[in-house]
Amino acid sequence: MATRALDELVEALRRLPGVGPKSAARMAYHLLQHDRDGAQRLSQALQAAIGAVRHCRRCNTFTEDEVCDTCRDPQRDASLLCVVETPADQAAIERTGSYRGLYFVLQGKLSPLDGVGPRDIGLSKLYQRVTDGQVREVILATNFTAEGEATAHVLGEALKARHLMVTRLARGVPAGSELEYVDLGTIAHALVDRR
Amino acid sequence: MATRALDELVEALRRLPGVGPKSAARMAYHLLQHDRDGAQRLSQALQAAIGAVRHCRRCNTFTEDEVCDTCRDPQRDASLLCVVETPADQAAIERTGSYRGLYFVLQGKLSPLDGVGPRDIGLSKLYQRVTDGQVREVILATNFTAEGEATAHVLGEALKARHLMVTRLARGVPAGSELEYVDLGTIAHALVDRR
Repeated sequence: MATRALDELVEALRRLPGVGPKSAARMAYHLLQHDRDGAQRLSQALQAAIGAVRHCRRCNTFTEDEVCDTCRDPQRDASLLCVVETPADQAAIERTGSYRGLYFVLQGKLSPLDGVGPRDIGLSKLYQRVTDGQVREVILATNFTAEGEATAHVLGEALKARHLMVTRLARGVPAGSELEYVDLGTIAHALVDRR
Repeated sequence: MATRALDELVEALRRLPGVGPKSAARMAYHLLQHDRDGAQRLSQALQAAIGAVRHCRRCNTFTEDEVCDTCRDPQRDASLLCVVETPADQAAIERTGSYRGLYFVLQGKLSPLDGVGPRDIGLSKLYQRVTDGQVREVILATNFTAEGEATAHVLGEALKARHLMVTRLARGVPAGSELEYVDLGTIAHALVDRR
């Protein structure tokens, strides 16, 4: 029943993260049946984003300029550099409103099993950046997953060898949670890092 | 942090069914960071589908021609017409391989609360179609939801008034299920329709 153009659209939608064959078909049917304007708008937004969005020359985050707004902001404390895995993580930290330093966005995380090594995530660019004389403290804010922890470990060793102060986001019990339902590893960390 | 083109892409992705603000941001970041080819391909597939895919003149399903392959198939039994809500429902029935008649795809279902009346789902086109002298039996295969049942009821009355044989998909216990876990309404229907 399905047409070639429809099949191709379903296949293209399946490339989106978290979209399986059923959701992709549902999305394609919905767009063609009820929301051709939305389909047109999505097509154009994709084209525009591919053309306009690139990586900041200083911190790697998404920007439409040579250097992003955050890196250009003179109000920011240039002696603090926060290393995150993705622009989404950076956005999460920005939303807290409690950090006024600069960022460096890795291109992912170290993952030897997937063949992702130090070169693939732009570590040499980071090493160059931290030795510009301005940065005094590097805050490692990679995720608390196996890969994120490994990335933080490798980075921490390399940065300490360059005589930089290296810190890591605190681990502990999340705000609003009850101890009974917190996993044991988290409680153990919270005990060790008690203050 | 986010750029205008990126914001616009996230907004456009939110128009997809089942995609909230977090998923949309995740999709946009993924496409721009890891899969610009996929973004390009999706943009082109959308454009191609908008241009090529239209509705079959006879049955309303998606096709790239004037009349779809199913309607043109001389092997099909033209005296049987199965009425479904969407091309996805038609595809589900086709996959069973147990139906050799023709289809009519409604443009949705009656839903007075959302302001969807008989005209919006193309009922007059259906009434015209069933009085072409070939159709003898109309199988109502709208969904077994409140709106689908209401649509089936309205259709059934109107078609019986036109002296057509009207049937509805059987309701009952799904294959492979245990009675203990089947909802009571379904068991009640299965009792009434026992054979």
